[in-house]
Amino acid sequence: MKKQQSELGLVQVYTGNGKGKTSAAFGLALRAIGRGLKVYVIQFIKGGFDYGELYAVKQLANLKLKAFGRGKFITEKPPEKVDVGCAREAFELAKKVVVSGEYDIVILDEINVALNLKLIKVADVIELVRNKPKHVELVLTGRHAHPEIIEMADLVTEMKEIKHPFKKGVPPRKGIEY
Amino acid sequence: MKKQQSELGLVQVYTGNGKGKTSAAFGLALRAIGRGLKVYVIQFIKGGFDYGELYAVKQLANLKLKAFGRGKFITEKPPEKVDVGCAREAFELAKKVVVSGEYDIVILDEINVALNLKLIKVADVIELVRNKPKHVELVLTGRHAHPEIIEMADLVTEMKEIKHPFKKGVPPRKGIEY
Repeated sequence: MKKQQSELGLVQVYTGNGKGKTSAAFGLALRAIGRGLKVYVIQFIKGGFDYGELYAVKQLANLKLKAFGRGKFITEKPPEKVDVGCAREAFELAKKVVVSGEYDIVILDEINVALNLKLIKVADVIELVRNKPKHVELVLTGRHAHPEIIEMADLVTEMKEIKHPFKKGVPPRKGIEY
Repeated sequence: MKKQQSELGLVQVYTGNGKGKTSAAFGLALRAIGRGLKVYVIQFIKGGFDYGELYAVKQLANLKLKAFGRGKFITEKPPEKVDVGCAREAFELAKKVVVSGEYDIVILDEINVALNLKLIKVADVIELVRNKPKHVELVLTGRHAHPEIIEMADLVTEMKEIKHPFKKGVPPRKGIEY
């Protein structure tokens, strides 16, 4: 398929406490793939966990995914060394992928959470944006987006939870929530 | 692939003025497909328009899509007959697909807009939810979700626009916005 590339890559942020942040990024990936664009998803914090996207990705040429982390929610403050290590490894790959210009869209899934937990530095992400080739679209997801990230972004959507079944005791469902 | 089906189908709503509603639904579809579930996307108002998802869908087994409408934003009040006809046709298909129980997730994309324009009736959608087989997950997207729809839903996320590049004069980009 002929690649139908946009000249102008922006920075998009999906944040907030509602469901749909990672899904929106994957939906965006699907649309882009439909246009022959190449997408790389780098997931922070999510490695080692079994979830649906991993299997779907295999059906799609032009979509690459790599997950880092221990696959558990990190709440420790200060963070454990192993989590800092995973996040830094993810970020090193992100830099390489973005700067290469080979992928039209780079999705850094849950990077806002990694920033909030201070596993990586806001200044480093801002530098990454400054160094990105013009055509590369960068998508940053996760709760608690840092004010400086919001300031820098071109597009920001807050996913606001109005209602969530977990609150009614419905557990996460395979194929739907993960 | 062995189907990994959840027993409990809920009603999800993605609404609000921010970017990511349709994308979140497609991302959800991608995850489900990864689990061997079957997904049917019925798009209201969007037919006759060229957009990226249409091409990506072809790469995925288990994902079916049908778009209705003239592919233009409808603002006329009262609505034109042709638009009412398209929306009703879409809704008739939705009923058939949902009640059949053949698809695990049915996405009614932009149905909230069709409701807001009074192309279809809220009471009919509520009846559809009442008649749905228990395992079917229903996803309703679009701005201006009706209060009765929000009341009925199990999960509601409001996509809130914090920043949008259209406001800075960036036109919709192929592969990114459509």
